[in-house]
Amino acid sequence: MTNWTEIHEHVQHWIREAGQRIKQSFSTTLHVQSKSNRNDLVTNIDRETEQYFIQRIRDTYPTHTILGEEGFGDDVNSLDGIVWIIDPIDGTMNFVHQQRNFAISIGIYEDGKGKLGYIYDVVHEELYWAQSGKGAFLNDQPLPPLEEGHVEDAVIALNATWVKPNKRIDHQLLIPLVQDVRGTRSYGSAAIEMAYVAAGRLDAYITMRLSPWDFAAGKIIVEELGGKMTKLNGEPLNLLEKSSVFVSKPGLHEKILTKYLHALK
Amino acid sequence: MTNWTEIHEHVQHWIREAGQRIKQSFSTTLHVQSKSNRNDLVTNIDRETEQYFIQRIRDTYPTHTILGEEGFGDDVNSLDGIVWIIDPIDGTMNFVHQQRNFAISIGIYEDGKGKLGYIYDVVHEELYWAQSGKGAFLNDQPLPPLEEGHVEDAVIALNATWVKPNKRIDHQLLIPLVQDVRGTRSYGSAAIEMAYVAAGRLDAYITMRLSPWDFAAGKIIVEELGGKMTKLNGEPLNLLEKSSVFVSKPGLHEKILTKYLHALK
Repeated sequence: MTNWTEIHEHVQHWIREAGQRIKQSFSTTLHVQSKSNRNDLVTNIDRETEQYFIQRIRDTYPTHTILGEEGFGDDVNSLDGIVWIIDPIDGTMNFVHQQRNFAISIGIYEDGKGKLGYIYDVVHEELYWAQSGKGAFLNDQPLPPLEEGHVEDAVIALNATWVKPNKRIDHQLLIPLVQDVRGTRSYGSAAIEMAYVAAGRLDAYITMRLSPWDFAAGKIIVEELGGKMTKLNGEPLNLLEKSSVFVSKPGLHEKILTKYLHALK
Repeated sequence: MTNWTEIHEHVQHWIREAGQRIKQSFSTTLHVQSKSNRNDLVTNIDRETEQYFIQRIRDTYPTHTILGEEGFGDDVNSLDGIVWIIDPIDGTMNFVHQQRNFAISIGIYEDGKGKLGYIYDVVHEELYWAQSGKGAFLNDQPLPPLEEGHVEDAVIALNATWVKPNKRIDHQLLIPLVQDVRGTRSYGSAAIEMAYVAAGRLDAYITMRLSPWDFAAGKIIVEELGGKMTKLNGEPLNLLEKSSVFVSKPGLHEKILTKYLHALK
């Protein structure tokens, strides 16, 4: 029988300690490299932070599997058993340019079911987390369940890049949505944008290409509060592949799917 | 001879006290929001905060003129003498939806010249301020002068609404800019976006319609650090009228004007 309470105690301690280390790194030189393209940035701190987590998980839970953005974990081809899905720094561009508005994101799944999710806004020391079936929290404050949302009152996260011609989506589909909502925002960290949906500060978040480590934690937290997280066409997310992601308050999810995204089905 | 040091001591004290009052209002705000009467209350807090400042300025500096968003100041038709330009809550939509990411913005001008500028991120207790000729600061830390920026490395604030058809600008002009920069963000508070440019976290900010109280403070802070703030066509801003606003690091301002915005001249 897995002791999820004990795992939670470990994870939150590790996350806060890793956050301290990241903040201490602000005064030292950052080595910034590009990955797949010049805007896909990675730093030595991303790598060191992932290694920090992997070492502790391996020492404490040697039978668990780890999928990490920076590739220091396992080759994960199945969600059998207990799988940790880790993004040591979500929003690396913000980390490099702003030294804020980035997050540690950790989702822990058992046989494909979300059990524990954590999004830690390092600079503001805000830990959004959930244990499936036990509630979601911001630090030690319970987050209330998400209420039904309406398009005309909605503030949604949507980057300008998806509203101009691009190779991931017909941007014409999104223009009427931008027109109809109350406002749009873009923070540059998928994890923080999902945490904002969980905390009721955003009504929805739409983006075209995330990896499992970008949404694994957010999915557990948002769903624990009654929110919906799917691909943009409404299909379930697959935790082993890249995907578009559409996160929303309940009710609003179906309204946006039906009125604006139906052509993607 | 105006004692700007004394004025500064007063303003920063008033701003932090007003911020405390706004934060104390959160519990009340939440309560009324659930009764879906939230817009009245927000107007209330906007108004109360503006009145708080006006009362103190009138008591202490009865000869000064005040231009405030909520209309409790003077009818200002000229910038002669000392003019305070006040937005009690910049980012009201964020205030309502998020209870964060809004700011108090105060610019103080003498015969049209910026003397003191303040942008206070209330929730994060971050006061960005400058005294013309004496430097700019985040709380008590000096902000370094802004360095030359480059388009391909730039992270700019630009809302999705300007990248789709709209009545303020030919959005086709902005699409190549969105394509060429490293990334775009949108925070929903002009004052905070200008503070981010001042702090080097954003390289530029473009928006189509602001009022003087939205940019009066930011202009003083950004220009003190060597940044540029103009209309979108490069013309000087007029502190007595609504305007498009283009804020940027030095160098980058001319590059974006020349390559992307020249058609607006």
